[in-house]
Amino acid sequence: MVTSSGVSGRIAVDAMGGDLGPAEVVAAVQLALAEFPDLNPITLVGDTAVLTPLLASAQLANSPRASVFHASEVIAMDDKPLAGIKRKKDSSMVRAIELVKNGEACAIVSCGNTGALMAGGTLKLRPMEGIARPALAAVIPRENGHFILIDAGANPEARPEHLVHNAILGSHYCRVMLGIARPRVGLMTIGTEEGKGNALITETNELLRRVDDIINYAGPIEGFQVFTDHVDVVVCDGFVGNIMLKSWESLVNFFKSMLKEELSANPLRKAGALLSKGAFNSFKERINPERYGGAPLLGLRGTILKAHGSSNRYALKSAIRAAGEVIKADMNHLIEADITRANARLEQPAA
Amino acid sequence: MVTSSGVSGRIAVDAMGGDLGPAEVVAAVQLALAEFPDLNPITLVGDTAVLTPLLASAQLANSPRASVFHASEVIAMDDKPLAGIKRKKDSSMVRAIELVKNGEACAIVSCGNTGALMAGGTLKLRPMEGIARPALAAVIPRENGHFILIDAGANPEARPEHLVHNAILGSHYCRVMLGIARPRVGLMTIGTEEGKGNALITETNELLRRVDDIINYAGPIEGFQVFTDHVDVVVCDGFVGNIMLKSWESLVNFFKSMLKEELSANPLRKAGALLSKGAFNSFKERINPERYGGAPLLGLRGTILKAHGSSNRYALKSAIRAAGEVIKADMNHLIEADITRANARLEQPAA
Repeated sequence: MVTSSGVSGRIAVDAMGGDLGPAEVVAAVQLALAEFPDLNPITLVGDTAVLTPLLASAQLANSPRASVFHASEVIAMDDKPLAGIKRKKDSSMVRAIELVKNGEACAIVSCGNTGALMAGGTLKLRPMEGIARPALAAVIPRENGHFILIDAGANPEARPEHLVHNAILGSHYCRVMLGIARPRVGLMTIGTEEGKGNALITETNELLRRVDDIINYAGPIEGFQVFTDHVDVVVCDGFVGNIMLKSWESLVNFFKSMLKEELSANPLRKAGALLSKGAFNSFKERINPERYGGAPLLGLRGTILKAHGSSNRYALKSAIRAAGEVIKADMNHLIEADITRANARLEQPAA
Repeated sequence: MVTSSGVSGRIAVDAMGGDLGPAEVVAAVQLALAEFPDLNPITLVGDTAVLTPLLASAQLANSPRASVFHASEVIAMDDKPLAGIKRKKDSSMVRAIELVKNGEACAIVSCGNTGALMAGGTLKLRPMEGIARPALAAVIPRENGHFILIDAGANPEARPEHLVHNAILGSHYCRVMLGIARPRVGLMTIGTEEGKGNALITETNELLRRVDDIINYAGPIEGFQVFTDHVDVVVCDGFVGNIMLKSWESLVNFFKSMLKEELSANPLRKAGALLSKGAFNSFKERINPERYGGAPLLGLRGTILKAHGSSNRYALKSAIRAAGEVIKADMNHLIEADITRANARLEQPAA
């Protein structure tokens, strides 16, 4: 099948990079193919000697929907990102990226070394026309749903036009992943009084207003609004975004351990916790990172979905599904069109 | 009594600015004086006609430990900060700041308009010798204790030397408030791989290493370490700090409402929640912002403690206690000495 992207529509899955090993990745592929009959075909990239028997056990040996592409090396979690990409030319990650570069696949799913995946993607896949640097997005639960955080860590020294591009990238990903037709975009800042924020924010805010027919710009937002139902896309640079994302994870872990400690402090509390177990399970499910499995690196010619190193089959299945959605929606072409319109607007002198 | 600061050691309390009104402020003063026999004397600043009867009801009319300083106006929460400070010259906030400026008090506690307090403090009290801009600190609960976040929002465009000053300010506040003799200081960044972070962080990291006999520098830290027992002072600029702080509050609120919803979804869960009520109460107490009531604006000639606008008497009592501790420890003189040593080091050319 040839999609409107002019390529196969295949998803390249790095089968070797995760903490749980290739068996878990194959299990994820098996689950995804079973659950989503329309899912794009998948190429598992990795050691054939390891993957072929796993595919056979998964009843996928002769499936037209899954194939293997051989790669003899693996980039380890503790490999230096750039060195790993440059030295391990026959690694599953590098080969998966090259499949996209050569038009043999449209998207990559990997739970390998994050730094290497970002560096490799950015070096080997060119940015889209009109975009200087890719951005990492994350899907985060909040009141009444989820929001997209972009950039979650790819570009720590953004200029105003990069943030405008982030807004466009995030809006499209929000549409595809969360099904929101006209996502509200907020620019992360501090205070909304005059003179607050910084020079980057002031200039970006002005640029975002110029393109508010392309994106649905809701204005600057403050930290206290992030987890309320206020915007669907939170735009920031990769420095602020990564710090927010990781500190939230740290806070959630702190909360969970505190709650666990308190709930097991005496027999009465333990009994209560047992009775209300369903509540804690639903609670966990609502903030379950497995639901949206991968963080996409957006703005490149080809989509890279980074799943957590410790991803299990369910998280990986979600990431594979996300890759399929992105390809089917022809998201990257729609993004390029909006970027072209926005850049034309940004080049005009200020009114 | 004349302290080593050469002034009275009095605490000026803005009695008019909070959401709960002057009666709550007087109640806080009454609690603080009763609980802390060594507490510095307090000057309540506000409308005498309102405050005198409140003090009489609180049995403080003739106390040598509490007095009233008249101010006829109040800066409202919705007043524009700069305009409020400039127009309302006889407001309780401006008068309280002036008491410190004139050496009649050493510290201010206010739960009034944050922007006005910051603007007023920065304009009317000069920064300490060697410091360009003040920084706002916050005490945040984490695994095994608390940490100091600095700057939580005063200076959104910091240069490297400002962050070094924040490290010194935060260390001293940590010593006084958390009783940690040699607080570990971390510099907030993303990733610790080469090439990560941004130019501000790279340069600040180098400067912090130069002064690591003055502060106990533990190196850069990432978001995932913030709520673990890794450092005692987290240094960042006011843009990042304010976004973190407010997004954490937003996340906590989201969490609480989700948990409440889940725990009341059916009778079984409700019964369980009732049995384990003690756990939720202890949990709330552990993250209770009332314990450290005020966020100090540090680096000025005089300490300003900003309490939340909705502070009740217990939160305000904690803020008043904090002001007393800061004065007793002669914190500002110790800070000035460290700033002088650090600045001499920073002026030397890089090794």
